Amino acid sequence: MENFKLFDPKKIFKEYPESKKTYFEGKLFKNLKVPMREIKINGNGKKDISKSIYVYDSSGPYSNKDTNININEGLFPLRRSWLLKRKPIQGGITQMGYAKKGIITEEMEYAAIRESHHNLKLFEENMEREKRLQSRNKKFTIPKVITPEYIRDEIANGRAVIPANINHPELEPMIIGRSFLTKVNANIGNSAINSSIEGEIEKLLWSLRWGADTIMDLSTGKNIKETREWILRNSPIPVGTVPLYQALEKVGGIVEDLNWEIYRETIIEQAEQGVDYFTVHAGILLPYVQLTRNRMTGIVSRGGAIMAKWCTSHHKENFIYSHFQELCEIMRHYDITYSLGDALRPGSIADANDEAQFAELKTLGELTKVAWKFDVQTMVEGPGHIPMHLIEENMEKQLEYCHEAPFYTLGPLTTDFAPGYDHITSAIGAAMIGWYGCAMLCYVTPKEHLGLPNKDDVKQGLIAYKIAAHASDLAKGHPAARSWDDALSYARYHFHWDDQFHLALDPETARKHHNESLPDEKNLRTPFCSMCGPRFCSMRISSQIFESNKDN
Amino acid sequence: MENFKLFDPKKIFKEYPESKKTYFEGKLFKNLKVPMREIKINGNGKKDISKSIYVYDSSGPYSNKDTNININEGLFPLRRSWLLKRKPIQGGITQMGYAKKGIITEEMEYAAIRESHHNLKLFEENMEREKRLQSRNKKFTIPKVITPEYIRDEIANGRAVIPANINHPELEPMIIGRSFLTKVNANIGNSAINSSIEGEIEKLLWSLRWGADTIMDLSTGKNIKETREWILRNSPIPVGTVPLYQALEKVGGIVEDLNWEIYRETIIEQAEQGVDYFTVHAGILLPYVQLTRNRMTGIVSRGGAIMAKWCTSHHKENFIYSHFQELCEIMRHYDITYSLGDALRPGSIADANDEAQFAELKTLGELTKVAWKFDVQTMVEGPGHIPMHLIEENMEKQLEYCHEAPFYTLGPLTTDFAPGYDHITSAIGAAMIGWYGCAMLCYVTPKEHLGLPNKDDVKQGLIAYKIAAHASDLAKGHPAARSWDDALSYARYHFHWDDQFHLALDPETARKHHNESLPDEKNLRTPFCSMCGPRFCSMRISSQIFESNKDN
Repeated sequence: MENFKLFDPKKIFKEYPESKKTYFEGKLFKNLKVPMREIKINGNGKKDISKSIYVYDSSGPYSNKDTNININEGLFPLRRSWLLKRKPIQGGITQMGYAKKGIITEEMEYAAIRESHHNLKLFEENMEREKRLQSRNKKFTIPKVITPEYIRDEIANGRAVIPANINHPELEPMIIGRSFLTKVNANIGNSAINSSIEGEIEKLLWSLRWGADTIMDLSTGKNIKETREWILRNSPIPVGTVPLYQALEKVGGIVEDLNWEIYRETIIEQAEQGVDYFTVHAGILLPYVQLTRNRMTGIVSRGGAIMAKWCTSHHKENFIYSHFQELCEIMRHYDITYSLGDALRPGSIADANDEAQFAELKTLGELTKVAWKFDVQTMVEGPGHIPMHLIEENMEKQLEYCHEAPFYTLGPLTTDFAPGYDHITSAIGAAMIGWYGCAMLCYVTPKEHLGLPNKDDVKQGLIAYKIAAHASDLAKGHPAARSWDDALSYARYHFHWDDQFHLALDPETARKHHNESLPDEKNLRTPFCSMCGPRFCSMRISSQIFESNKDN
Repeated sequence: MENFKLFDPKKIFKEYPESKKTYFEGKLFKNLKVPMREIKINGNGKKDISKSIYVYDSSGPYSNKDTNININEGLFPLRRSWLLKRKPIQGGITQMGYAKKGIITEEMEYAAIRESHHNLKLFEENMEREKRLQSRNKKFTIPKVITPEYIRDEIANGRAVIPANINHPELEPMIIGRSFLTKVNANIGNSAINSSIEGEIEKLLWSLRWGADTIMDLSTGKNIKETREWILRNSPIPVGTVPLYQALEKVGGIVEDLNWEIYRETIIEQAEQGVDYFTVHAGILLPYVQLTRNRMTGIVSRGGAIMAKWCTSHHKENFIYSHFQELCEIMRHYDITYSLGDALRPGSIADANDEAQFAELKTLGELTKVAWKFDVQTMVEGPGHIPMHLIEENMEKQLEYCHEAPFYTLGPLTTDFAPGYDHITSAIGAAMIGWYGCAMLCYVTPKEHLGLPNKDDVKQGLIAYKIAAHASDLAKGHPAARSWDDALSYARYHFHWDDQFHLALDPETARKHHNESLPDEKNLRTPFCSMCGPRFCSMRISSQIFESNKDN
């Protein structure tokens, strides 16, 4: 592991220009320091709009210029002091348990501050505009002010989760639920073909840099446990895993040799390390396997295929399903969140919304109720490959069958015909389902279906998904969403080029694109770019119209 | 122009692997030879599925291996013999004029064959699947069989257009309307900052390679007329322009010096060259300009800003609006299609669906009726920047105000915060509005708002938009759409790697991604990739389940 000494996390985070890590304090818990990213708006030095904008910041201490982080030591365990004071409820200290008792935790207030709208005075209020753009979502409304009490209530009712294992004290708490900012998960992890711990740590930091809200370590190659330890100790965001993968490694890859005891042992091992949520393939039952027989692409969930093979070869029911209550007791002990896996999600447009998929979803809804009895926080996973016109049905059925537990989907991909660009085919579906109420979007990279993603694939996948998530936040009317667009559009209309770049989701790329044809520094003062040139710049002509009117 | 001798179009088209240009014959017009791209499916040499799939092919004669094309000579004028026989109706020989008289033209049958479903026997019929996936669009239905008569009827009713100037005989006719495959336009053209005819011809061919259905030459730099001539003589797809740009160049860029006479002269000049459709900014009226005063980003259409400035500086009504009937007479003479420009489209999320935008849209609807009286085919342009939840209203209002004339939108971009990635922010909105019934999507490249797109930007923009268009075709239930997805998913599930690459929208990139981690030729026979490795490949395990069942 000597190589890690060479590894300076600051290098990855140098690219936030004109940004500063800012901390907001708690009101209920005065010691809370909740991070936001403050982007300075310069207005080309003019007084127009010389303010700051605060945006959600999941990058952790890495982006704080004043903090030195040594990967070998891990992050500061900020939650430790909170956890030490807690008293168990029902043998667990879960967020859901406290929420049901009416207790607001540090994690809840922390999440509430992150979700709040801190840019109230960026522009003059324009009531016509606010009314015109307001959400038209009939299924749910998001309150204008997100309070700790609102968060407590959402968690108590199962509509939101704060994944936070008591053994992951380094975590900066965040909330996943349809009434909150749409979250994005990045999958990392090695495979038997590509393996290195350094590579995975770099992907973690890279994911943080590009805005991942949670990551899943899906390693199936060498050093699974050690890789996970490095990731957990250095991750300020929730870490999810699929314990079945490691269990299968323990039995030498022989599916038939899996059993509850090995699975349970793996669960506890990962729980002790601090994994925040587990994808658990408990909903694929023996009779459902036959429902996939006429599918175009069979079973495309890795865990799903493993469990289907186990069930059919033993002619027995899924051992995770039959031990689900015992599993809930373990989950409760650590406050690990369920991510109930959709083993039977469609892997092609042809298989979308079929009987197998919805049969499993109903079972996931039943399991959700069981988990809630144990105060275990629960999300439900969703597809997959779905044509646009069938996406809304997925959200509706999930809300109905799963009692409004947060939905967490992979895409969905809206067409199968563009391997190499599935970050785009799926960003379309992801944005839509986010708008319909999906709480978290699992990213898809350009390598999907083709190979293990590398660093640049992780970036491209995250960019596409941050776009999808933000587009859905605008559409569902999250109060903290639109100020970012407004600030950027204002800068654009006023030719504040530097502000445009600083406010861009990817500042470096925006600046590079502009400078490709107008590299000279003085062009950052010009009221046009190379797209239209000076005579044909609509924004320039448009602003002249009202300026000349002023003179009249 | 000597450089063009060095320029071999074949090089750009070498990348269609296992593809062959195939021609379907007409029934009404026996001499028609309608091009499709036939992709051979090899099934790893097994008998599984050893067939071909036919996909829509807008690339023109360039992708025909047996045709040698000299850019200096231009394409063969296939429509010339059809046009010579035609008799005028109302002083014009427009497709709409014939359609209203009940006459089916060569162009109509040609378009019908292109839109037809030629892959009927690719897979066994699966009624459960067909029913499950069928369109749920309540606003319109697409017939299962697209006949020349259906096309004639759609044109007669104004719901579809075949842009085809009588002076562009090189054109391979295509149809734009909500009941047909969603089309994609690529904007090319120089600006005062970047100019070269060779560069624009290369962008044309590059656009054809990546599936553009029409192109707009938006040149505002040097040699506007000459550039257009080269493009038209070498373009098998409709070419659109914004004549106002050249008119403005004629008056030295002084907006106030524009007038109807100069505009009319420019229109005729371009009509004589063979431009197939004109973006005409006739709907922005003097009183509407004030409606943009409180906008975040004013007027962002170039033509719109020019006309707004002209109107306000002269305190006169828009001269294109006041001469619209005269303009219709010219359009009819050449069968040029109107693309009624949305001068007041929103340029930011904050300005979406505002009064200015919809006021102009109503006027565009009135102008549509006038154009139809003259038998002039008409499309209506749409936005722009629209958050997801306000997109459907755009389509609904357009259908209502504009009497179901085809809608042609720019994106829409669903957020403003990601300059450098606006091909993605807008592909989301484009896919959605395509599904709602938008007939053609104007692409947006990664350079949008930042600079003039280069060759790679054109490719990235087109890829994103071919995805959006195809996703919308699947969702709106076009009969020819799904076989492509099915063929690719079949290849994927059966590990026919070569077929996967050949069927991919971008074969080269798909193969490159796969080979990055498994470069060895023998890995094209393995039932896994580096994403999951051999033990964790869900598709592999899934197929084992049913194979082992077979043995029992």
